[in-house]
Amino acid sequence: MSAVPQPGHVDEIPERSGIAFPLRTGQRLTVIDPKGCQVSDLLAYNVDDTDEVISSGRTLDYAETIRLTTGHLLYSNRSRVMLEIVEDTVGLHDFLLTPCSYETFDHFYPDLPRHRGCFGNLAEALEPYGISSAQIPIAFNCFMNVPIDAASGKLSVLPPISKAGDFITFQAHMDLVIGLTACSAPASNGGSFKPIHYRVD
Amino acid sequence: MSAVPQPGHVDEIPERSGIAFPLRTGQRLTVIDPKGCQVSDLLAYNVDDTDEVISSGRTLDYAETIRLTTGHLLYSNRSRVMLEIVEDTVGLHDFLLTPCSYETFDHFYPDLPRHRGCFGNLAEALEPYGISSAQIPIAFNCFMNVPIDAASGKLSVLPPISKAGDFITFQAHMDLVIGLTACSAPASNGGSFKPIHYRVD
Repeated sequence: MSAVPQPGHVDEIPERSGIAFPLRTGQRLTVIDPKGCQVSDLLAYNVDDTDEVISSGRTLDYAETIRLTTGHLLYSNRSRVMLEIVEDTVGLHDFLLTPCSYETFDHFYPDLPRHRGCFGNLAEALEPYGISSAQIPIAFNCFMNVPIDAASGKLSVLPPISKAGDFITFQAHMDLVIGLTACSAPASNGGSFKPIHYRVD
Repeated sequence: MSAVPQPGHVDEIPERSGIAFPLRTGQRLTVIDPKGCQVSDLLAYNVDDTDEVISSGRTLDYAETIRLTTGHLLYSNRSRVMLEIVEDTVGLHDFLLTPCSYETFDHFYPDLPRHRGCFGNLAEALEPYGISSAQIPIAFNCFMNVPIDAASGKLSVLPPISKAGDFITFQAHMDLVIGLTACSAPASNGGSFKPIHYRVD
């Protein structure tokens, strides 16, 4: 699904789906968890050259932390700032894992019906912008709760701590295409699928 | 630099440089730290379709740990196994950060001469295989020591704990193009630049 958001209007991404839309330099994108305990995978591409894409590896290197929140900058694979987190009522997000897919469902939920997941939803939403599924990297997973045990390195996917109405706001530092989902994987959101709301200002 | 390794022969990657070569299904690649306290960035691509590339996000998701060692599988962006770690005398590597580049030198070492880093070295070495710099993701950084503080999320780049002669061995699960470097960033290797040795069996 591709759309041009109406500034100031809150739009809904239905459960287990995704969307893509342009975000211009200076505009703000607010991702809202309307019911609480839900995850939204966010991707960003340079609208003028979609080979430039949001990069977890560059961002974590520059930020020197995996805990990104207000004031942190999200970088592209070319080390340019794409987005700045300007407000964040949760403070706990993930930037280590790739969007869920048919294959991750096979691995983690062999007894559940397969689902194309955020990966498939993002691939379809981004296709009209000339972006292929091979260009989908690690997403910035808003509200996703992935603690790491420092001693063992073990990571866990726990329910988000976000409450109904919690949100995170990004400001664009370049003209972007944004991909955004309401997550499809049971473990990411405490087992119940919910929508995500977003607003562009 | 592109080359076809001679099986059983130890080759050297000179300090601050990189190489690319094919690795066939079933072959083993051993990456050796000949002097100790050095880092080697490793990338892998499906030789028949270079849109399929090693994926930190998929690998960490399936392994449920950031501490990868003997027995762990390294996955592609299509959730297929590319490499298996079959021997590892160190047990401490990084799979969170992207290869160093001109821009990371500008950021972290503004007083040092710029260097294209592992990113530039890999881009040149992979170009003959039709792989562009936009296709360079987070590398598996052999011997790189990046502890994370569990409470704050803060990450640090510390000198590797590898001693002279330490090594890690990977077995290929598909026909691959491998990119491999001797790291160029002072903080990654305790401040002195050294070669990396490798062997294909």
